[in-house]
Amino acid sequence: MKLASLKHGRDGRLVVVSDDLAWCAAPPPMYPNLQSVLDDWERAAPVLEGVALSLAHDAVPHARFHERDAAAPLPRAYQWADGSAYVNHVELVRRARGAELPASFWHDPLMYQGGSDQFLGARDPIAFHDPAWGLDLEAEVVVITGDVPQGATREQALAAIRLVGLVNDVSLRGLIPDELAKGFGFVQSKPASSLSPVMMTPASLGDRWQDGKLHGTLNIDLNGQMFGRVATHVDMTFDFGTLIAHLAKTRPIIAGSIIGSGTVSNRDAAGGPGWPCAQGGSGYACIAEQRMVETILTGAPSTPWLAPGDVVRIDMLDDRHHSLFGAIEQQIVAA
Amino acid sequence: MKLASLKHGRDGRLVVVSDDLAWCAAPPPMYPNLQSVLDDWERAAPVLEGVALSLAHDAVPHARFHERDAAAPLPRAYQWADGSAYVNHVELVRRARGAELPASFWHDPLMYQGGSDQFLGARDPIAFHDPAWGLDLEAEVVVITGDVPQGATREQALAAIRLVGLVNDVSLRGLIPDELAKGFGFVQSKPASSLSPVMMTPASLGDRWQDGKLHGTLNIDLNGQMFGRVATHVDMTFDFGTLIAHLAKTRPIIAGSIIGSGTVSNRDAAGGPGWPCAQGGSGYACIAEQRMVETILTGAPSTPWLAPGDVVRIDMLDDRHHSLFGAIEQQIVAA
Repeated sequence: MKLASLKHGRDGRLVVVSDDLAWCAAPPPMYPNLQSVLDDWERAAPVLEGVALSLAHDAVPHARFHERDAAAPLPRAYQWADGSAYVNHVELVRRARGAELPASFWHDPLMYQGGSDQFLGARDPIAFHDPAWGLDLEAEVVVITGDVPQGATREQALAAIRLVGLVNDVSLRGLIPDELAKGFGFVQSKPASSLSPVMMTPASLGDRWQDGKLHGTLNIDLNGQMFGRVATHVDMTFDFGTLIAHLAKTRPIIAGSIIGSGTVSNRDAAGGPGWPCAQGGSGYACIAEQRMVETILTGAPSTPWLAPGDVVRIDMLDDRHHSLFGAIEQQIVAA
Repeated sequence: MKLASLKHGRDGRLVVVSDDLAWCAAPPPMYPNLQSVLDDWERAAPVLEGVALSLAHDAVPHARFHERDAAAPLPRAYQWADGSAYVNHVELVRRARGAELPASFWHDPLMYQGGSDQFLGARDPIAFHDPAWGLDLEAEVVVITGDVPQGATREQALAAIRLVGLVNDVSLRGLIPDELAKGFGFVQSKPASSLSPVMMTPASLGDRWQDGKLHGTLNIDLNGQMFGRVATHVDMTFDFGTLIAHLAKTRPIIAGSIIGSGTVSNRDAAGGPGWPCAQGGSGYACIAEQRMVETILTGAPSTPWLAPGDVVRIDMLDDRHHSLFGAIEQQIVAA
């Protein structure tokens, strides 16, 4: 089942979307938005699955679905907790500044509490304010959970995953060092993130959802050029069950919480950081990583941060080369 | 105007509460919970003020209001961002571990993004899991905002404050050092906080709301003994307008965001950390601070962290010694 929220008010208007993303149908009125479904998943999911089946058989009123009409599936959420499951990414960041990776980072997940009061739609522009802020994209996988009890095991956490999708976790690299030094996490350096137009249930992903990981290739394009072709199931040190259990160690997690994987990052065959797409490599899921590789190779970064006019595109295709979640495609616009 | 949410479902049931906290009346059905009011404040506030006036004149159906029936005014919120406005507190924490306070801390607010998916009611027990987690209270002032545009000035931020109340920002001191070392902020070390039964509009606070600060004495009792009598308007380096503007520097803030002052903390007349209540001082708003003073004075802390059976009480009285926001009174219970 694929779900989306059309732009409407503060919470959007929930629709069930056809597998090919061409059509959408309205759910019954007791489920006006996605949060209302997450609040009542046991009863709501079968109802929506029925709508999806009817939609697949043209047996329900439907309309064209346009990704540009989509708000974030949850335009505001009660939680956004973002992990750093691809430890390779963290190691690279540290190596670029000459710092060693603590051994604990391989078994104790890094995670930050992000702002969840606003998620941008997949085609919403990203506001550019100040070149010194160092605007970057971060392509990640996200899940939305149901209620998770405090102290949940990895298996309980996995069973509570309701939906899977993509996120562009917009970051302000120029503001991160000062906030990291304070130790209190990210406040100003993480403006609103953007969610994919559509989110899918784990069951509907079939073999692409295994062991708490999304199996596929994340396509990241910058201004129409390949920027990254990274595998989301490779080098993911902590699966989503482990990330959710980490968050639930000391408190319950309430339905509608969005959990992120952190920037997807793959090693190359030799265990190194690989090469940019322009040099035949599989590239990266954020500009920072490409700049780190440039720094390691040549002593200085050469790829600039995002600037007005740039277009970021993040997408994942199925075996027939159709988009799974719809594309995040955002232009950078001077504020 | 005083507002509360009675325990009911995931969002509580909104009621308007009389000034003396004895009675409550239901708002019109289009405002079933506090978030629906915050989403539509310009239209909703006058309607609710009308209910409050009718309640004051016995001109509307009403029922007894019991603080024990109150959920958190927002049992789940879209944002919880907690400052450290009482820099004295931060300086004490650092002094106890021999670290210097960076000069920037006096003009650049410390703030962390907290988990907002669950707020406990004022009489809900606090679960005790592991003595090594070092369970502590933190008595603070909070405000709930309307929509705040990105880049808002302090004045714009002040104008967007809808409600004022108290919070017990429960902290797990034993887990904080490791999370601080990671630099990604607090995830496991901050379980759900508890909000006061009632929140008040700034206008209804009269002289007690000035310059973006709550003027009053926060009474903190531990097991029926005075633990702290701290002035919320004293030594507050950053007022709420400054805290909100800090958060809004790089992104808008959506209605229903809860912003915290950080642990209230006063210097004594000599500029020092003062004395515990038991020794005639005005005490502290968290156990950590008392332990820090003990460490500075004697080399080691003597006050234990919270344990099952302990009762924490946080309250603020008006000039007639009536509770302004109702009392947070929570027992620690073994999980």
